Amino acid sequence: MFEAKLDRGIVLKKILDAINQLVNEASWECTSSGMSLQAMDTSHVSLVAVNLNADGFSKFRCDRNMVLGMNLVNLSKILKCAGNDDKVTVKAADGDDKIKLIFEASNEYEVSQYEIKLMNLDAEYLGIPETSYNVTVKMPAAKFQRICRDLNQIGDAVTITCTKSGVEFSATGDLGNGSVTLNQNSSFDKPEDNVSISMQEPLSQTFALKYLNQFTKATPLCSQVTLSLSPDVPLVVEYKVIEEAEEDSKTEIGHIRYYLAPKIDDNNE
Amino acid sequence: MFEAKLDRGIVLKKILDAINQLVNEASWECTSSGMSLQAMDTSHVSLVAVNLNADGFSKFRCDRNMVLGMNLVNLSKILKCAGNDDKVTVKAADGDDKIKLIFEASNEYEVSQYEIKLMNLDAEYLGIPETSYNVTVKMPAAKFQRICRDLNQIGDAVTITCTKSGVEFSATGDLGNGSVTLNQNSSFDKPEDNVSISMQEPLSQTFALKYLNQFTKATPLCSQVTLSLSPDVPLVVEYKVIEEAEEDSKTEIGHIRYYLAPKIDDNNE
Amino acid sequence: MFEAKLDRGIVLKKILDAINQLVNEASWECTSSGMSLQAMDTSHVSLVAVNLNADGFSKFRCDRNMVLGMNLVNLSKILKCAGNDDKVTVKAADGDDKIKLIFEASNEYEVSQYEIKLMNLDAEYLGIPETSYNVTVKMPAAKFQRICRDLNQIGDAVTITCTKSGVEFSATGDLGNGSVTLNQNSSFDKPEDNVSISMQEPLSQTFALKYLNQFTKATPLCSQVTLSLSPDVPLVVEYKVIEEAEEDSKTEIGHIRYYLAPKIDDNNE
Repeated sequence: MFEAKLDRGIVLKKILDAINQLVNEASWECTSSGMSLQAMDTSHVSLVAVNLNADGFSKFRCDRNMVLGMNLVNLSKILKCAGNDDKVTVKAADGDDKIKLIFEASNEYEVSQYEIKLMNLDAEYLGIPETSYNVTVKMPAAKFQRICRDLNQIGDAVTITCTKSGVEFSATGDLGNGSVTLNQNSSFDKPEDNVSISMQEPLSQTFALKYLNQFTKATPLCSQVTLSLSPDVPLVVEYKVIEEAEEDSKTEIGHIRYYLAPKIDDNNE
Repeated sequence: MFEAKLDRGIVLKKILDAINQLVNEASWECTSSGMSLQAMDTSHVSLVAVNLNADGFSKFRCDRNMVLGMNLVNLSKILKCAGNDDKVTVKAADGDDKIKLIFEASNEYEVSQYEIKLMNLDAEYLGIPETSYNVTVKMPAAKFQRICRDLNQIGDAVTITCTKSGVEFSATGDLGNGSVTLNQNSSFDKPEDNVSISMQEPLSQTFALKYLNQFTKATPLCSQVTLSLSPDVPLVVEYKVIEEAEEDSKTEIGHIRYYLAPKIDDNNE
Repeated sequence: MFEAKLDRGIVLKKILDAINQLVNEASWECTSSGMSLQAMDTSHVSLVAVNLNADGFSKFRCDRNMVLGMNLVNLSKILKCAGNDDKVTVKAADGDDKIKLIFEASNEYEVSQYEIKLMNLDAEYLGIPETSYNVTVKMPAAKFQRICRDLNQIGDAVTITCTKSGVEFSATGDLGNGSVTLNQNSSFDKPEDNVSISMQEPLSQTFALKYLNQFTKATPLCSQVTLSLSPDVPLVVEYKVIEEAEEDSKTEIGHIRYYLAPKIDDNNE
């Protein structure tokens, strides 16, 4: 028996919006410590990993480990039927070929139940090695989204250059070139606007904007995004999964991490 | 001579929005007691009937009965040219082949006049027998719209099951199944959220969501919708036509009723 | 060296939005007195002229006259990368084949730089003779936009008829006909709603709505539009270019004028 309840169903909607264009089918691994999902995108270039901790849920029970393979596009369709303020419960009986989703509205006279069929998917759990990164940039998630979208007007790829003073995003294309530079910035009043860079040495890497623009679908999940870079290893783009409950209290339920390898540098050719 | 004036033209816009995707051409029957329209949808499955009472208009004059056949898509186009707060007057001279629409803006320096050609349409006035229904459900119109839209994600048809305790809407399809249950609910503070069910015996019928989703285009007309069901007769979905004037006063001008036969139950096969 | 700075970059965006569907490529003429652009639309029927005065900029420097030919669609793409409150600087070095656009955000830790390639375009500077017009209509720009859009539901062309009492816009088509009449109106409280007509003699001319609807893309630039008409000369549709700075102060930076010849009157045939 597996059962997990979130008081604000909109969090699940946001998670699905963040991954369902990248990945059509995937398996949730459920254990007593939480739920996680890991999948290559459909073109097998980038990787997405979602982790939701058991104690982030208002109710969580997992009697024995389960793998719930499902079509994420269908799951999204059903989550769209939940009101933003609905409590959402996910239930799966041991050995069953479906899961149940229960949406409880904030009014007390309405309840919805949906069942979605499970799938047997080939497992491809990739051990992602814990890496320490040379450069870590924390910045407003909406700003990162805006920059990736803007520079896609100019070119297909963005070069991220980190120096002590700041981080520069630049692109080149047929119509010209463009760059956006952010300097370190910290504000006590608006911590969500902070730009902080921790680095061991300057670094410059280039990434396909097509994938970054997919990653930024996670922007509604939290106010800040973290970029981690090191030579010759994939970029990690991380968003915390935050549940905003009543009276502005925020609970960190887990995170979504996207991995994308840098493009090979053509400058030397 | 026929002349009818509404102080808030937006009501006419909403009426046309509620019917013009279902019906392209139809005849308004005008008598001294009001205006009415009745038509099968273009696929000849459902029926829509509009009734507007003479005393709901701020001015109404109909010297002798007239039949005004017109293209409703064109009428909609012209009504889109009216401001939401414009007073709208419809005028037709006896024997003329066109009607005149006059839009008076709330400012006093602007007036618009449109003429639209009339058509000779085959009359198909269907006598709808007055029926007493076993089950009547009154519920928030927006909720009914939401449920029809949500369940269309799951399947093509919705089964409406009424019992003493509440009403359940359910659908089944390739990806799974879903149901939304509403229990009776009455609130003095928010009467527009009430769910009330009056019934003689439990009943379960299935309807094509394609048509129900067309009917719910009438949702902006009023806050509640009424569903009337009985074995072996068409479902009636009724919306009042409400004119919201200044200072929150509301006038009931008439109603729109949609009729749709239940699907034959395949459970026994 | 050419350098021009606007404190609110959104003005440049609005200017480009007002012309870039009409004209794909054009040359800005830069002199010490300002920047101007003149171009036929791609179908060579209408003409657009933009004038921006040097003293409307917060910084303006033009050492010697320059002609900056560019793809306006590309320029629009880059201006979309500017925040609405960004300060925008345009820079061109003498003899260079590109211009630089610098966007400074209102926060102080972010700056963007874009370079766009210049083009050699055939000059076609048309001397537009100064004309005195028989009829001048000033009216709310949003109203003019609305009328052109509404009447396009009815027909392809609008007839503008000016008399002492007011101005009438009318159209005829397959579905019927329509007209909107505005009477002179002046309000001390809401000058932006004023309709004023100065005329020497009544006049009626017909214009293709396809072009007028393009011209009204300039509506966001200012609250009033001026229509100037005379027999046998093109209509002029003029919008002031207004920069709305903080605390409601408004600076007139220049204007956009559109020219369109009347349709030949077919009434006599």
